[in-house]
Amino acid sequence: MGQEEEEAVRGKLEQLKQVLAEVEDLEMATAVLYWDQQTQMPRGGAAARADQVTTLRRLAHEKFTSPEVGELLDALADHERALPYDSDDASILRVTRREYSHATKLPRDLVVEMSRAAAEAYHKWVDARQAKDFGIFVSSLERIVTLSREKAQALGYENEPLDALIDLSEPGFGAAELDRLFAELRETLVPLAKAIGERSDRVSDALFRQRFDVEKQLEMGRAAVRAIGFNLDDRGRQALSVHPFSISFTPDDTRITTRVNEQWLGPSLFGLLHEAGHGTYMQGIPVRYRRTPLHNGASSGLHESQSRLWENYVGRSRAFWRFFLPVAKAFFPGQLGRATVDEVYAAANIVKPSLIRVEADEVTYNLHIMIRFELEREVFAGRLAVADLPAAWNAKFQAYLGITPPDDLVGVLQDIHWTQSFGGSFQSYTIGNVASVALCRRALADHLGMEDEWAKGDFSGLLTWMQDNVHAHGAKYKPNELLLKVTGEELTPRPYLEHIKAKYTEIYRL
Amino acid sequence: MGQEEEEAVRGKLEQLKQVLAEVEDLEMATAVLYWDQQTQMPRGGAAARADQVTTLRRLAHEKFTSPEVGELLDALADHERALPYDSDDASILRVTRREYSHATKLPRDLVVEMSRAAAEAYHKWVDARQAKDFGIFVSSLERIVTLSREKAQALGYENEPLDALIDLSEPGFGAAELDRLFAELRETLVPLAKAIGERSDRVSDALFRQRFDVEKQLEMGRAAVRAIGFNLDDRGRQALSVHPFSISFTPDDTRITTRVNEQWLGPSLFGLLHEAGHGTYMQGIPVRYRRTPLHNGASSGLHESQSRLWENYVGRSRAFWRFFLPVAKAFFPGQLGRATVDEVYAAANIVKPSLIRVEADEVTYNLHIMIRFELEREVFAGRLAVADLPAAWNAKFQAYLGITPPDDLVGVLQDIHWTQSFGGSFQSYTIGNVASVALCRRALADHLGMEDEWAKGDFSGLLTWMQDNVHAHGAKYKPNELLLKVTGEELTPRPYLEHIKAKYTEIYRL
Repeated sequence: MGQEEEEAVRGKLEQLKQVLAEVEDLEMATAVLYWDQQTQMPRGGAAARADQVTTLRRLAHEKFTSPEVGELLDALADHERALPYDSDDASILRVTRREYSHATKLPRDLVVEMSRAAAEAYHKWVDARQAKDFGIFVSSLERIVTLSREKAQALGYENEPLDALIDLSEPGFGAAELDRLFAELRETLVPLAKAIGERSDRVSDALFRQRFDVEKQLEMGRAAVRAIGFNLDDRGRQALSVHPFSISFTPDDTRITTRVNEQWLGPSLFGLLHEAGHGTYMQGIPVRYRRTPLHNGASSGLHESQSRLWENYVGRSRAFWRFFLPVAKAFFPGQLGRATVDEVYAAANIVKPSLIRVEADEVTYNLHIMIRFELEREVFAGRLAVADLPAAWNAKFQAYLGITPPDDLVGVLQDIHWTQSFGGSFQSYTIGNVASVALCRRALADHLGMEDEWAKGDFSGLLTWMQDNVHAHGAKYKPNELLLKVTGEELTPRPYLEHIKAKYTEIYRL
Repeated sequence: MGQEEEEAVRGKLEQLKQVLAEVEDLEMATAVLYWDQQTQMPRGGAAARADQVTTLRRLAHEKFTSPEVGELLDALADHERALPYDSDDASILRVTRREYSHATKLPRDLVVEMSRAAAEAYHKWVDARQAKDFGIFVSSLERIVTLSREKAQALGYENEPLDALIDLSEPGFGAAELDRLFAELRETLVPLAKAIGERSDRVSDALFRQRFDVEKQLEMGRAAVRAIGFNLDDRGRQALSVHPFSISFTPDDTRITTRVNEQWLGPSLFGLLHEAGHGTYMQGIPVRYRRTPLHNGASSGLHESQSRLWENYVGRSRAFWRFFLPVAKAFFPGQLGRATVDEVYAAANIVKPSLIRVEADEVTYNLHIMIRFELEREVFAGRLAVADLPAAWNAKFQAYLGITPPDDLVGVLQDIHWTQSFGGSFQSYTIGNVASVALCRRALADHLGMEDEWAKGDFSGLLTWMQDNVHAHGAKYKPNELLLKVTGEELTPRPYLEHIKAKYTEIYRL
């Protein structure tokens, strides 16, 4: 390449980066608006906020899908091929190309109609929940299914429509592969849950089910969050919200929310560890990726791997409680003063087949996801009608968990996800659970004696490992690329199942 | 006009309103980002926030100053002339035309340079304050003066450059007119302050200078704010910030902040009444003005009239304390339990020549503003060099208030305003003070017995009057247009001076 040509390429790359930077500014501003809406906004602010968000989203979408971006990507294709795959610039171009392709394949009318249908479906879903009657939601959900199918057609897929939707949140994954994953999980988890059910008297969580002062719960939760290394001071914030979430506007401004149950210590403590886990990922992404498409996690599932890591692998470990029980006793001497590490470890790991996904334990959680995934696949394949979802839902709950929801509210109507899109979101929870153990086991092998450090309240070894091996790459790699690079193999349930089986065999003395 | 022509006009008006709506969405989103920055953002968020705000502002500016807007305004000029002056559509077109003219007159390079120079001046100002040395700030301030002069040239003016800057915040006002206003104020206020100074032993504010629990101060402040009718629940919020401010994203989402001094009740209580006063204006603007340029107050000064009204005319009235002293006693029985209405009324109205504007009382406040206004005018006229500002400042303080600042920090360096622009902002405080009394006197005349209502904690008569006569018009009228319409005369210091003279003659038994 001549010097002039090189300069032209550099100029085009800068031009593209400038557009991407402005798109991110708009997206991050929208995120601030969302944070404010969930944590501070008075009810009266809703109408204006909807206008603001609509305008910001539209401007970001227009800017990102402009022909200018397509032309720049075309002009930079040779340059991209000449760069090392994992260089920043090649990765920016590759991820931009993928997202541009998604964004431009969706017809504007379909996007508008999706958004309209989702708003309607949300209201019908709320009504249906109030009446505990799925019937009220059926026609709205049918519309969402139809539009989700159209979306899949527009995006294109190799084997089945669901692949297109899965690929949006888990680039590279397909439905058939996930089906095999769930089959392996089912084979171990269904009998394990059953065996535990027969020994349910061996563990009690009464310790966590006492009255705990709300302010003290928050202080204790923040102590845990700080201990694992989430920066809550210079680079982070915590607030209350109805539905806990984490959000980030830059690695240096990452925020988490929680809710508190005065009668149960679990939601605030493990909820904060969960959101702070997401938060460590966001805080760990290099600041130089800011205002590029690399300023993101590898996928929703990989993001969930970090939240599950800290919530479950660490937060529900014996080593963690060796460190944290004295801290917890200082906050709640009356409730926990006489508790032993074994007691609190058992209480943190109680397994109970339950109806509600978000309250599910480590053993049964993936079964909740599997049920949803199987139902989505059957509906997409035309083997199941939307109207028949409640019966199919209940039958699967009976088959896998041995319980049947008494009504649709605690059954098929429990999740908000299907009001937005049918298919493509639930699988990420299971990918996260499974990946969290694969990654953590690799970290433990690389850094021996790590659990002894946890028992002393030192989590920096694990956090640094995750920062170096996972967070440092931002969105450079697809989830399986990253797992292969870091653990030596693509996603496999083996480490997860080994861990769960060993852990609960001991706890429940199976 | 034929039917087709009418439809074309309607279409163009809708097109313009759509642009204006999107501009406001961007501006309001920027305002949410500001609120977050001041009340929640961790330090690490600053760099990304600056990027977000810059992008949003640039998009709003580009959209508003696009040739499309100019063409639509031209095309709608006849339509505007045919409409009644105070109709919504004529007013939207008129205010848009004025703002479009301002925005397009300023060369892009000047705007960029202003913003760069302001950022630098801010840092130099901080350094100068730390060193208590104006010298450090001189060359930055000279640059701000030069650019402010260029700005005035670009905007255009009739008599003197300062007029152009004043017109930005107080449409229709000019420097000569304000000079006359200050002369009238000076004539009464300087001797009044002097007479009070000779009787300073007659009033003490020791009652307010005790230890007051921070949380209780906030609760009491919110009780006061709710009492005067600011909606803090469905349509408002309150938070802490270093510098108190009020902000609104829609009339239905209006927020105020405060700071608390544990050793002094004044800042939180009167500060909250002040910001809530601004807030009532914002909450009182008709929701139908949202996403138009009418979604605003008539001017900075008129806005200040509402904050001063509630902070001073009401909050420092005997009637208010008849109602509020029992409330305050319930919060602070130890500190205020034995206080009488007369004692607390006197404490709330102590007058003390002081160095700091934001701590100044009702009598001396306008002298602080006058000093700044006179200095700005002298610098603009070339009669005073920037380097000589400290000496001139100190001389004026001695002349008007009888005190001399011991250093620049509590003298010429105290305000942030000159880091942003030289000229055009301070006058609004005095316009606000003066207008607050003119408006309130009119309301008292229209609605007899109002002060008896205040003594019972009922402020709805006054609030409703302000809503009907001031807030309801949003930014439709220029400040003097509105005052003339509502009080029967343009801004005059007479009611203000009568009120202040009578009030303090009684309090200090002059």
